[in-house]
Amino acid sequence: MTLNATETLLESLYWITILAVIGSSISGVLKGGFKKMDLFGVMMIAIATGLGGGSLRDMLLDREVFWIRDQIFFIASLTSAIFIFILARLVAIPHRFFLIPDAAGLATFSIAGTFVSLMFGTPWLVASFMGVMTGAMGGIFRDILCNEMPVVFQSPLYATVSWLGSLLFILMIYSQVDVTAAAVFAGTAIFISRLLAIKYNVTLPRFRFKT
Amino acid sequence: MTLNATETLLESLYWITILAVIGSSISGVLKGGFKKMDLFGVMMIAIATGLGGGSLRDMLLDREVFWIRDQIFFIASLTSAIFIFILARLVAIPHRFFLIPDAAGLATFSIAGTFVSLMFGTPWLVASFMGVMTGAMGGIFRDILCNEMPVVFQSPLYATVSWLGSLLFILMIYSQVDVTAAAVFAGTAIFISRLLAIKYNVTLPRFRFKT
Amino acid sequence: MTLNATETLLESLYWITILAVIGSSISGVLKGGFKKMDLFGVMMIAIATGLGGGSLRDMLLDREVFWIRDQIFFIASLTSAIFIFILARLVAIPHRFFLIPDAAGLATFSIAGTFVSLMFGTPWLVASFMGVMTGAMGGIFRDILCNEMPVVFQSPLYATVSWLGSLLFILMIYSQVDVTAAAVFAGTAIFISRLLAIKYNVTLPRFRFKT
Repeated sequence: MTLNATETLLESLYWITILAVIGSSISGVLKGGFKKMDLFGVMMIAIATGLGGGSLRDMLLDREVFWIRDQIFFIASLTSAIFIFILARLVAIPHRFFLIPDAAGLATFSIAGTFVSLMFGTPWLVASFMGVMTGAMGGIFRDILCNEMPVVFQSPLYATVSWLGSLLFILMIYSQVDVTAAAVFAGTAIFISRLLAIKYNVTLPRFRFKT
Repeated sequence: MTLNATETLLESLYWITILAVIGSSISGVLKGGFKKMDLFGVMMIAIATGLGGGSLRDMLLDREVFWIRDQIFFIASLTSAIFIFILARLVAIPHRFFLIPDAAGLATFSIAGTFVSLMFGTPWLVASFMGVMTGAMGGIFRDILCNEMPVVFQSPLYATVSWLGSLLFILMIYSQVDVTAAAVFAGTAIFISRLLAIKYNVTLPRFRFKT
Repeated sequence: MTLNATETLLESLYWITILAVIGSSISGVLKGGFKKMDLFGVMMIAIATGLGGGSLRDMLLDREVFWIRDQIFFIASLTSAIFIFILARLVAIPHRFFLIPDAAGLATFSIAGTFVSLMFGTPWLVASFMGVMTGAMGGIFRDILCNEMPVVFQSPLYATVSWLGSLLFILMIYSQVDVTAAAVFAGTAIFISRLLAIKYNVTLPRFRFKT
């Protein structure tokens, strides 16, 4: 990829990550809300969902964890949590609404995770998995903390679209497509596929034992 | 903070951490005991509860994990586990007793976590969260391993007092209070507030959806 | 230990780790299968079980995570997952079969984890715990993701044999036994003891409160 395009994406990555943190945090807050958590619990769930996937990625890659030096990500997560905590008392939020910030967080974190991992020089298959993990692990932490089986293993094509999108992003970069264009295209593909998969209840084949 | 005071605290930190490990390990053992775990399970729960929070803090900060080079922390955790395993067979331990080592571990780990993070140069909000995480994460690991929803999200002011205490500690340091005095004061405040919150069942507002 | 023997073991370690990844991944897939996960869920469980324990070990030791640079481990885990996913539809796999790859993974990962930790210069007690963790943590992740209480805390001598085997391995190395011989002996001891413990339902004393 060209240096200029990479610099542009690196700059965009900062804002993309903030958006991803906000989207994931909101999905965490709403899920925690279904469990009637208190204000603090909701803030912790927001942080685990919003910052958890990227933290694990950075620890696995032995990079500096992205929210340690710059507390903007932390503030974004907490502010979203408090905002939704208050909003939910004032306005009726439809149950299914949480799927939208969740899909947005999945898409943006998948692309960001893949890109960071590629920049770090990991092999492509590992990079695509880092995309999935950055995208999906926050939701897994959220569900474990709520003591539920993670929705990622049952929900229509949750991590599958994240993985296919990450692979598509890598393929486009290897094919010399402009990196920002590739990021926007693959990210949008993840977001739309996820919402379509829910709407039409697309699923993968399940494990079945021959009896 | 002055250099001397910092050195004193750094030395104290070693002993404080050992106490925190013992307190947390005992709380883990008693919780594991309610689940009728075997001796080994109880030792693993002790280690996860006693060393888990600090380990995650150190991995996030990319510091050397505190129990890797010096096995005293490890030995402290295991010895506490075996001691309580035997003691519980000989003496009737009241159910509520486990709240005391738990509160002591919460207080000491919160202050230690905040201090380590500040020394490491993180922003103050991140440092206060590292305090909460060091203090509360061991108990979260304990509860996840026992397959329960973490008590931290439901128990009266568990992590809330940890957070407020960590913020108080930071505020006192920024106000030029002697760092050891600040540590003792804020730590005691966490310990007492936690026990008072349980006694009077103080809670935070819960999440509520407008319907 | 002599340099030559160490070099031989280091080379063997690569192949041992691949076998351990395959064994653990298969045990994860079969467990995920009982939960009727879909293909993707099964792949994720395979990765968490096969790569999880070693990843945590490497993050705690601040080593480069073993599967980041060389994607063979990743491919081994995914291929095992897909292979078993298909095989289970064609051939009746007895429920208890999953205990064999599980015991093989436990044995090989315990020895590999202890050895890596010793090479890294940790104290012996910490090294033995790293063996247990590398061996048992994958299965703990597997069970948490399946929302069950980890079998490691209840199953006959699961982590206990891993720990005793790791301690035996360390003792043999300290007694100047050839390191490869020690690895094979201690690893086989773990594998056989685990299967015998299941067959004869050997258990440790459980926690019991005096009432």
